Amino acid sequence: MNSAVSEPALIGVDWGTSSLRAFLIAADGEVIDSVASSEGIMQIDGHAFEEVLDRLIAPWVASTDLPVMASGMITSRNGWVETPYAEMPLSAGDLARSLVLHKAANGTRIHFVTGASTEDTGGPDVMRGEETQIIGASSLGLSGGTFVMPGTHSKWVQVAEGEIKDFSTYMTGEVFAALKGHTILGTLMKDNAFSKEAFVMGVKAGLEGQSNLLHGLFHVRTLPLMGKIPDAAAADYMSGLLIGTEVAAATADAEGLGPITIVGRSDLSERYEIALNTAGYESRHAPDDIVAKGHFHIARAAGVVG
Amino acid sequence: MNSAVSEPALIGVDWGTSSLRAFLIAADGEVIDSVASSEGIMQIDGHAFEEVLDRLIAPWVASTDLPVMASGMITSRNGWVETPYAEMPLSAGDLARSLVLHKAANGTRIHFVTGASTEDTGGPDVMRGEETQIIGASSLGLSGGTFVMPGTHSKWVQVAEGEIKDFSTYMTGEVFAALKGHTILGTLMKDNAFSKEAFVMGVKAGLEGQSNLLHGLFHVRTLPLMGKIPDAAAADYMSGLLIGTEVAAATADAEGLGPITIVGRSDLSERYEIALNTAGYESRHAPDDIVAKGHFHIARAAGVVG
Repeated sequence: MNSAVSEPALIGVDWGTSSLRAFLIAADGEVIDSVASSEGIMQIDGHAFEEVLDRLIAPWVASTDLPVMASGMITSRNGWVETPYAEMPLSAGDLARSLVLHKAANGTRIHFVTGASTEDTGGPDVMRGEETQIIGASSLGLSGGTFVMPGTHSKWVQVAEGEIKDFSTYMTGEVFAALKGHTILGTLMKDNAFSKEAFVMGVKAGLEGQSNLLHGLFHVRTLPLMGKIPDAAAADYMSGLLIGTEVAAATADAEGLGPITIVGRSDLSERYEIALNTAGYESRHAPDDIVAKGHFHIARAAGVVG
Repeated sequence: MNSAVSEPALIGVDWGTSSLRAFLIAADGEVIDSVASSEGIMQIDGHAFEEVLDRLIAPWVASTDLPVMASGMITSRNGWVETPYAEMPLSAGDLARSLVLHKAANGTRIHFVTGASTEDTGGPDVMRGEETQIIGASSLGLSGGTFVMPGTHSKWVQVAEGEIKDFSTYMTGEVFAALKGHTILGTLMKDNAFSKEAFVMGVKAGLEGQSNLLHGLFHVRTLPLMGKIPDAAAADYMSGLLIGTEVAAATADAEGLGPITIVGRSDLSERYEIALNTAGYESRHAPDDIVAKGHFHIARAAGVVG
């Protein structure tokens, strides 16, 4: 490695609702160091965003004056600086042109990445942060097809030639948590080892009966009640049912899918891999830190780094 | 009215998870008196069911020895006496033959009505209490078509010639409550006056996009966020979206529906009427106390009353 390109050049910050990750990025785009925190925007009192950021990146900025690129819910109405939504299609260049510069009290220059919006027949859809991850994935050569981003609100993103063409949000993760925590369906559920069998059974029910989720959910109760699945497997059946329903809806236009890339390597992304496989689709995984690649790629397109 | 037929002959008890209603029924089937209580089976400590019942019906049994017919979740595993599920099809005679007699400590004879079960491709479905309401509606001449029973777990019941042929449960009410109370969707919601406009907008989205509920739910957030509907209307939009999704799934086989009867006259049943109307279906209402008619009708079929 050449010492000039491995010099710190940028700090990337992926600041979400419930967590925060910061990356020290070299002039060649490689991640030199990173730090994670649970100080998501909802955990911070009185908008003390600058204080939190200063503390986290202090070890990196002591002797330098690095620019910061920030993306995620930090740019929402409840965040630090609200940025507008950019419309489809969206490239690294478009995001670079839409950066919102904020100069912090201590002089740090923070470039906020804008969010993205689209519109379907039912209403608007929005994202904040995922656009930066997709641009990062593109810079790694994963520049086309469908990106599946599992999470509280999972996103399915259509990408072609490094541009974001369209996307849809599914509330699967948050619906699962609300049903498990706050309905009769959760009363039987315990934190058991993953039952792949029950999960796949749920996925199949979701794939076949996607139009009938409100009825299918009642089976989460009756299947254990009638001894058809163990009580301990009810949570995985419900997880499969919801993810299968999501996969069926999101893959309804099979022609337009292209290669499918799952972002991240969490337990949740394993579940999506199984569900896609059950539906007859192959998938590959993108690394979880593509967001830092996105920060770097957009920063370079904007001339923030050389 | 003839004094013999207006003599008390039976006590009917509809005992659910969160509430309880008891009816004093005359020899001609008319309701003489009724009492309601919030002592549903989940509110009663230490299975003190007999004590609660004694207290409620004490004014009626002081000088008589009336038989009791009880239906609802009181016959479930968490209730007083667990009864089996009867299978489809199911008539008043079938329910009469399946009664489970329990003699209370004080000598009161309580006849528990059995629950009902059916099976579809996704798994079992069950009901406890609604079968008695349907039999009651049949005795009023509402003996065919589809019965819609709105509630925490709404039931759609197919009836022909006074027999229950099949049914499906939709978790719509409980899903609504969990989403409103425990997800980001609820943060904007307040208890506002009913917005029929937002409700119908949601119903239409549900009818058109029934296969895509997990995505459609995100519009409950984005429509107010983007100023497309007022914050105050978000709850009614979500209510419409869920009920519209339910109606689309439950009316998928339009040929088999027959006349549609909504049970009860609550705010919720008004919403179902609007949703059915938006989907192009007429509906009529059955009175809410048909359960007492069901108790009487089954009791007579069993010879419990003359």
